[in-house]
Amino acid sequence: MSRIINVGAAQLGPIAPEESRVSAVNRMIELLKQAKDRGVKLVVFPELALTTFFPRYYEEDISRMDHHFERGDMPTPETRPLFEKAKEYGIGFYLGYAELTEDGHRFNTSILVDDTGRIVGKYRKVHLPGHAEYDGKRPWQHLEKRYFEPGDLGFPVWRSMGGIMGMCICNDRRWPETYRVMSLKGVEIVMLGYNTPDVNTSAPEPNHLRMFHNHLVMQASAYQNSCFVVATAKAGIEDGCMLIGGSCIVQPSGEMVALASTVGDELITYACDLDLAKMGKETVFNFAKHRRIEHYGIITEQTGVVEPAE
Amino acid sequence: MSRIINVGAAQLGPIAPEESRVSAVNRMIELLKQAKDRGVKLVVFPELALTTFFPRYYEEDISRMDHHFERGDMPTPETRPLFEKAKEYGIGFYLGYAELTEDGHRFNTSILVDDTGRIVGKYRKVHLPGHAEYDGKRPWQHLEKRYFEPGDLGFPVWRSMGGIMGMCICNDRRWPETYRVMSLKGVEIVMLGYNTPDVNTSAPEPNHLRMFHNHLVMQASAYQNSCFVVATAKAGIEDGCMLIGGSCIVQPSGEMVALASTVGDELITYACDLDLAKMGKETVFNFAKHRRIEHYGIITEQTGVVEPAE
Repeated sequence: MSRIINVGAAQLGPIAPEESRVSAVNRMIELLKQAKDRGVKLVVFPELALTTFFPRYYEEDISRMDHHFERGDMPTPETRPLFEKAKEYGIGFYLGYAELTEDGHRFNTSILVDDTGRIVGKYRKVHLPGHAEYDGKRPWQHLEKRYFEPGDLGFPVWRSMGGIMGMCICNDRRWPETYRVMSLKGVEIVMLGYNTPDVNTSAPEPNHLRMFHNHLVMQASAYQNSCFVVATAKAGIEDGCMLIGGSCIVQPSGEMVALASTVGDELITYACDLDLAKMGKETVFNFAKHRRIEHYGIITEQTGVVEPAE
Repeated sequence: MSRIINVGAAQLGPIAPEESRVSAVNRMIELLKQAKDRGVKLVVFPELALTTFFPRYYEEDISRMDHHFERGDMPTPETRPLFEKAKEYGIGFYLGYAELTEDGHRFNTSILVDDTGRIVGKYRKVHLPGHAEYDGKRPWQHLEKRYFEPGDLGFPVWRSMGGIMGMCICNDRRWPETYRVMSLKGVEIVMLGYNTPDVNTSAPEPNHLRMFHNHLVMQASAYQNSCFVVATAKAGIEDGCMLIGGSCIVQPSGEMVALASTVGDELITYACDLDLAKMGKETVFNFAKHRRIEHYGIITEQTGVVEPAE
């Protein structure tokens, strides 16, 4: 049986603060239609795909940000048309959104919906970047550590749509641990959405490195874990803040096999042969043969750096 | 006090099976002289820098390979001139060689010698690639798992020559765990030597990917661990087997700041500002703030892949 799955990264241009969820969903449905026309079976939408990237704004009382969060189970009334259209087309999808649980916890979340419309799994962002308090030195804020709790679901994977699927979100992609945990469970496609300002506001750094780092970490991780990475940006100028595009599909060789060319709504696609992931998993990156966990201990025992004595 | 250290990667061209250690050492001394002329304070020589890359040959009785190993403490009589010249010049160095211990263990080893001639530390290669038994399907063998035991020293780091120094060897560079263990100890410069055939003999793969992967993993790891990587090849055609060059110095941004242009004896140098490593360690990759070890458990609990149930 063929293990080729035609995948799309459905990049979104900016979502202005005043843009409604209905409008954002309609833009995603438009990209779904393009996906259907190109025979795509799985589409990855961005992180926080229903709203503007609100962690750039400071609110002392975090509950005043709750209008950016989704309450209760998916689909919500505003997202139901996306779920229905995807089911009609037989297309699975990854969707990022801000989740407010019934008991009052806030997460940066993604879900995987399969090609029959079933919600297969949920992921909550583990590596929250930025800061928790107002930082007057920044041109805008990056308050993910204020508005979200770190994810509490780990890095699960799911057998779905013919492969072993995993999810992460934005900054997670910079951390080798993210992919490693999933590849120890056999992941074949890692899906992720991101919102990445084109300026590093925490440290001086040439702006062009933002795109370089975006691709570098995903290409290396695809290779080192012998998996596909499908990565989708929300891009362009949101309320004066430029977000990088560069949505891409990376194959297990680490080569980028599809790349967005705009910072607007744009679908890129690639027919991923999941058997390509096997080659690395059975040879250079045959973990059972080559990993030496007896020397890795501090990776899980120790959070921060402990330098040798002076 | 300045934390700039001028570093060199001293690539070697091929060492033929019949070439003597004295000849190899003389070539390294020649590169040391160039290093002195360019004000270099630390030079990285390749993996197994004293002999041909002998794991390409099969011997049923592994002790018949012992003439490729160094017995007893460094410096040996043949390597002493290198140690003396380096001390005279005030240059520290990394040297890779095959080590046969007094009690009969064989390791793929590197040592770090500081600019006063003191042996600061030893590393034994943890991630041995290849195979242990003769493989008739390969054009040549890659029998590191036959001739060496996996390293038993972990991934130590040392304060030396003004920075925090770490070592690894060849295939170690493809494994994110290698760098992560060292960066949890604050490593600022990771030194490594390699011998990498320009054909993947374990799996079908376009040959150009060999150089792409070589650089990809080191660039990503320099960025993800905010450290310099100084990587030195033994390159060119050894007994009919082509080894890639591509020796390079990578800065903590992940950018390659020096790159060899030949597959012969060649010195590349770069003045590394160790304070550049600080920026990442204090911001995007501030481990204490951002790592979530509660979700990393299987990285150290589990060696091989465990897929989800069908």
